Amino acid sequence: IPAMSLEVARLCKTSMESARVGTDEDKLQNGRDFYKFMFTHFPDLRVYFKGAEKFTADDVQKSERFEKQGQRLLLAVHVLAETYANQEVFKAYVRETINRHRVYKMDPSLWLAFFTVFTMYLETKTKLDQATKNAWAEMGKVFNDEAQVHLKNSGLPHT
Amino acid sequence: IPAMSLEVARLCKTSMESARVGTDEDKLQNGRDFYKFMFTHFPDLRVYFKGAEKFTADDVQKSERFEKQGQRLLLAVHVLAETYANQEVFKAYVRETINRHRVYKMDPSLWLAFFTVFTMYLETKTKLDQATKNAWAEMGKVFNDEAQVHLKNSGLPHT
Repeated sequence: IPAMSLEVARLCKTSMESARVGTDEDKLQNGRDFYKFMFTHFPDLRVYFKGAEKFTADDVQKSERFEKQGQRLLLAVHVLAETYANQEVFKAYVRETINRHRVYKMDPSLWLAFFTVFTMYLETKTKLDQATKNAWAEMGKVFNDEAQVHLKNSGLPHT
Repeated sequence: IPAMSLEVARLCKTSMESARVGTDEDKLQNGRDFYKFMFTHFPDLRVYFKGAEKFTADDVQKSERFEKQGQRLLLAVHVLAETYANQEVFKAYVRETINRHRVYKMDPSLWLAFFTVFTMYLETKTKLDQATKNAWAEMGKVFNDEAQVHLKNSGLPHT
């Protein structure tokens, strides 16, 4: 394992301690907060959430759907951080994530963009130093490289 | 993190090096081999695979469905091993796994039984020492405890 990958994994894992998952109310709120952030700052992305295309942050707050979706999203990012030191498993998880999103017909450029949005969300929870921001950018690049190859191999639109 | 959890994680991760995931033929075969093993030794479990209730090991070998399903299964177990040292993430992944299996109406006793089946499969790939077998049993116990609580909280049959 290259030393840089281990350091990226360590920095991402440490920053994810500010976005914990779980069944307690404060953990559920961490998940809702991601979608409140995304729907407020990137309202165009709501188009991918059928039935929630006009949702405000307040609608997200009151939504059982987004309580669950918030936990799913945070869990997925935790899994990325936890597996990053094992690139073979990380990349398999990337491919599985792509497979599961096939039905949503997402613009392929959104996979890289996600990491910018997520890093901005994390900054609402904790101060991120430059090394940690760089680590998330690096993880996003590795994720996206595998995602685009897999989209291509799957005969789907890719960048 | 308790030292024992770290040791369980380490032993499980090391043994998973004998069941690698990926896109190369040998990695795809690792996944097929799990279902060939399970369908041969526990044919009653085929009932949960609609359309494959009568599949032989040879049918699995030739099946694109089980090539994909094999990778999904191995990836899930790799994620369990990779997250075990972070029990909060591990347990969230357990709950998400339960949620995704709701539609299959599985007997709740199968969650614990899975780890016995999987350990037997791993033994077809590599020699497992007693400490490693104990580690898988411990991971299975922690998985199952969280699974049964979550099934109960979800209003579903549990043990």
